[in-house]
Amino acid sequence: MFNFQRLIIGRPLKTEEAAHEKLPKWKALSIFSSDALSSVGYGPEQIIVTLAVPGMLIYGYFGYATIAVIALLAIVTLSYVQVARANPGGGGSYSIALQNLGETPALVAAASLIADYVLTVAVSVSSGTDALVSAFPALIGREMSINLLVLFGILTVFNLRGVRESSNVFVWPTYFFILGIVCLIGTGVYKAFTGIAPIVPAESLVRQQADWVVVVLALRAFANGCSSMTGIEAISNGVPMFKEPGVKNAIRTTYFMALILGLMIAGISFLFMHYHLLPEENVTMLSQLAEQVFGRGWAYYYIQITTMLILYLAANTAYNGLPPLLSIMARDSYVPRYLGEKGERLGYSKGILLLSLVSAALIFVFNGNVEHLISLYAIGVFLSFTIAQSSLVVKWRRERDTGWISRVALNSFGACVTGIVVLVIAITKFTHGAWIVLVFIPAMIYILKTIHSHYLTTANQLRVSPEDFVDHLEIHNPKNLVIVPISGITKVVAASIRYSKTLGGDVIALYVYTDEEERRKFEEKWNSLNLDIPLRVLYSPYRSIVQPVLGYVSELEMHKSLYHYITIVIPEFEPAKWWHRLLHNQTGWILRTLLILRENVIVSTLPYHFKK
Amino acid sequence: MFNFQRLIIGRPLKTEEAAHEKLPKWKALSIFSSDALSSVGYGPEQIIVTLAVPGMLIYGYFGYATIAVIALLAIVTLSYVQVARANPGGGGSYSIALQNLGETPALVAAASLIADYVLTVAVSVSSGTDALVSAFPALIGREMSINLLVLFGILTVFNLRGVRESSNVFVWPTYFFILGIVCLIGTGVYKAFTGIAPIVPAESLVRQQADWVVVVLALRAFANGCSSMTGIEAISNGVPMFKEPGVKNAIRTTYFMALILGLMIAGISFLFMHYHLLPEENVTMLSQLAEQVFGRGWAYYYIQITTMLILYLAANTAYNGLPPLLSIMARDSYVPRYLGEKGERLGYSKGILLLSLVSAALIFVFNGNVEHLISLYAIGVFLSFTIAQSSLVVKWRRERDTGWISRVALNSFGACVTGIVVLVIAITKFTHGAWIVLVFIPAMIYILKTIHSHYLTTANQLRVSPEDFVDHLEIHNPKNLVIVPISGITKVVAASIRYSKTLGGDVIALYVYTDEEERRKFEEKWNSLNLDIPLRVLYSPYRSIVQPVLGYVSELEMHKSLYHYITIVIPEFEPAKWWHRLLHNQTGWILRTLLILRENVIVSTLPYHFKK
Repeated sequence: MFNFQRLIIGRPLKTEEAAHEKLPKWKALSIFSSDALSSVGYGPEQIIVTLAVPGMLIYGYFGYATIAVIALLAIVTLSYVQVARANPGGGGSYSIALQNLGETPALVAAASLIADYVLTVAVSVSSGTDALVSAFPALIGREMSINLLVLFGILTVFNLRGVRESSNVFVWPTYFFILGIVCLIGTGVYKAFTGIAPIVPAESLVRQQADWVVVVLALRAFANGCSSMTGIEAISNGVPMFKEPGVKNAIRTTYFMALILGLMIAGISFLFMHYHLLPEENVTMLSQLAEQVFGRGWAYYYIQITTMLILYLAANTAYNGLPPLLSIMARDSYVPRYLGEKGERLGYSKGILLLSLVSAALIFVFNGNVEHLISLYAIGVFLSFTIAQSSLVVKWRRERDTGWISRVALNSFGACVTGIVVLVIAITKFTHGAWIVLVFIPAMIYILKTIHSHYLTTANQLRVSPEDFVDHLEIHNPKNLVIVPISGITKVVAASIRYSKTLGGDVIALYVYTDEEERRKFEEKWNSLNLDIPLRVLYSPYRSIVQPVLGYVSELEMHKSLYHYITIVIPEFEPAKWWHRLLHNQTGWILRTLLILRENVIVSTLPYHFKK
Repeated sequence: MFNFQRLIIGRPLKTEEAAHEKLPKWKALSIFSSDALSSVGYGPEQIIVTLAVPGMLIYGYFGYATIAVIALLAIVTLSYVQVARANPGGGGSYSIALQNLGETPALVAAASLIADYVLTVAVSVSSGTDALVSAFPALIGREMSINLLVLFGILTVFNLRGVRESSNVFVWPTYFFILGIVCLIGTGVYKAFTGIAPIVPAESLVRQQADWVVVVLALRAFANGCSSMTGIEAISNGVPMFKEPGVKNAIRTTYFMALILGLMIAGISFLFMHYHLLPEENVTMLSQLAEQVFGRGWAYYYIQITTMLILYLAANTAYNGLPPLLSIMARDSYVPRYLGEKGERLGYSKGILLLSLVSAALIFVFNGNVEHLISLYAIGVFLSFTIAQSSLVVKWRRERDTGWISRVALNSFGACVTGIVVLVIAITKFTHGAWIVLVFIPAMIYILKTIHSHYLTTANQLRVSPEDFVDHLEIHNPKNLVIVPISGITKVVAASIRYSKTLGGDVIALYVYTDEEERRKFEEKWNSLNLDIPLRVLYSPYRSIVQPVLGYVSELEMHKSLYHYITIVIPEFEPAKWWHRLLHNQTGWILRTLLILRENVIVSTLPYHFKK
């Protein structure tokens, strides 16, 4: 039989087939850093978007905002090196906080991370599509279709197929992108200093006197720029995937990634300023820059395509991050348990699908507008940074290993700085979407806690000691009444009665009528059969079959001393063709759904297969 | 318990409470004629829409088209008087054709009628909203919301509540409308002849020389105008609802209705020509005329509001027509049987909902554009006219009652004329939407025949003689194997096993594991319980619970000689709160769905109720 699912997803994998591949540094860099590095595709632009207010003359603050972002990057990197040291077993802010700070901070971190991963997908996919559309204006207006195609046709399918295959496909674009950006910056800087490129008049970089409005705008620009730092934590969460010595390799890779990222942000920002670029509709600023530096030749298209690829790849990192996080939380009973189940291909398939669906909804609601999505983005990232580092401070103080004082100092400083950044973003961008995150996180924590307590309650209700278990098997009066609702003298009714007789219990036939004449005819027929099964007829004044049956069962339930169980045998027609189902009413299904709400009423579904 | 459905629909009615009210002529006229009379709200306008081609100078053919429409109205009326005579028991073209012409013509009539009723709702509701919006331009842009509100909030609810209540509410608008239009025509004609109104220059009615294009356009205008005749058949279908003498009263009412309709079409068309009105966006021509004659005062708003009401009322006639037709067809097994079931309020509730949904879809797809919907409209009506009259010709010739020759002559002439009209519409409006109906009707006939043959096949497969019925109850080896899938030592498992032991059969416990360590622990626990139930453990390499269970059942099915039935007891958790369901996986449901595909495998659903 041809199976569409097999074709798309591949054959199922056995548990034993799980890969335990360890990554060398050069491969790990590419896999873990695409999220961070790709942010140069939108980060510097997001700073300018805030500052390029017509007539305000505050473009010149761009440089300061960039320097602040790079300084913050250095601090966050040093802090996260500590995270990698502290958690050689992997596990992000949620796990560290749960161990060191307790439930609520851990759930704050979890909620932030969930928001962050979903936004990573939404922002990266939208930005990747923007890069594509900038290069090929013929695609303007098709953005949403492209986004959904990438999300479901590529990312979801690849991740459902499994990590092993995806990791190899996804190594090269990062290096191609780094090469392209380095060449772009190199060429741009060379042209700028050798005078080939026109030099921008100095007055365009004039800074208006700082008043309150300017300060808020500059801080907001900085807050936007912080979106460049998302993904920096990826390596420290993935230490177990590195070749031995894991921690050392992870730390080196982190430094190297931060260095590349810092240089790229600096270079791109310098060139934006030098060419005095301004945001435009339908064209990203990186695309404008590439066009200025290279002209619209193959080099320009190379930059756009690799930017697009690394952005889509960055979305992919969320698929490597969120489903495992959800599976850990499922094990801890904070999210539905089935999110922790591995699918056919050993990926957390339900988590993958959930991520795709929620991201798609987000892209759809925000109509793929990166600027609006970015506003939601950075706050969650920095919240989880702050919690991770606070957890480490607690950990170092408790463990008091060699060098703990300097570690406490470093992480305390990091926690303070990132905490301040959280406040800056929350205040300056409150009305620009930060409030959504600030509502989402407490709501999410409430939901997570409610789910947790439900699972605890359920487990308590199901728990039983071996002695009680055996006791539970005994009942006072194990008698079973079997009811067979019948509609006439047909083969299905014969099959139902035949099965009922094999069940150890009294059998009764139940006939519901709406018309006196019909009933008379039926009773005549039935009596002529001379069966040893009592017939009960019920009148249905409202013409429904379901109500009288329910009423009769309720009546019987009052006489519990006679029967402990009531079993109702309901035939289910299995039609020869699917559309035949549309032609039959769903009385059986409705009966089952309503009867199951009673206690000690068992519904036995007897299949009846039609041949044609 | 507060019940939303009770509030909207009312309490359920017993079968004995069905109304058998007979209608006097004045009430019947109003109830049956709203469809026909309301068409003056769009009919004459639809003729002009075709003729008002800029630069073509064929406006002057409007008068001819109108005269042709009125002549056709006379012929159709005379023919339908025969239908009322022939079918004192009611029943439309479908029933007459089934008796006299056979299955296929009857189904052609049925398909035409189905199309016609759905279009009546779509056209009337859209036109009613147009009348409203013409009077209150502030509503422009809200048309779709108004349409859906009227369709679901008013028509569906009223009809689900039942005919008895609706008929009284719906009597007066027809008379208010007739009064309004008569005053409009009277005042307009008075003003035209006394010279108060400006007289239109004669050259505006100049007719271009008739060439092929002009002829086609004029015929198309006539085809559009035929939409005024929809609903003329309503009275002859409703003869049983008239007070005695039913046939005589019905015939008088038909003549009276046709007379009013003819006069209104003539008057309105004359005034359209006199004022040389032309179609406008967002304003109906009737609204333009009322404004010309009365100015924008209370009389204008009276015309618009009564026009709106009668159009919505016309939509309501389809609710009185289609669900009963579907119930007759359901009895004949041409449409799903449940369409013939009476709902709580004794209306055919499923047919009512189906009509609302399909009409809403049609309005949505055509964006409430009356002109495009009209194109689909008239062809179905005239097809069913033609079939009804052909059926009568056959009937008269067979019965040969007194006066049969003149009746055959009359109905033959009627059938020819309406048949020619069908051809005219099909040809001149083929590319304007008539093709949709010409595709729909054969497709519908195919579907109806397929459904019919499915029901026949099903009935044949279920049919059994009393002797065979008794034989069917005997089986060679009535042994039952009861399988209890278990996941651990819990109260639910205890409940399942306890129930299983009351069933007359061997009980076996089935445990699926994915982890060797887990299995070892479980088996230890299980053995320590010392139950007399054998345990079967299955390894699931692909981590699914469902696959190993299905595989095990397949294995058992090969040993049919041991067991005739396999019963699987699956617990169903009944959570204390609805959202708890989202937190548990649906393994039980999936197992049931897949197991039911096997023969002689019975799924017993055992409810387990959580208290919190």
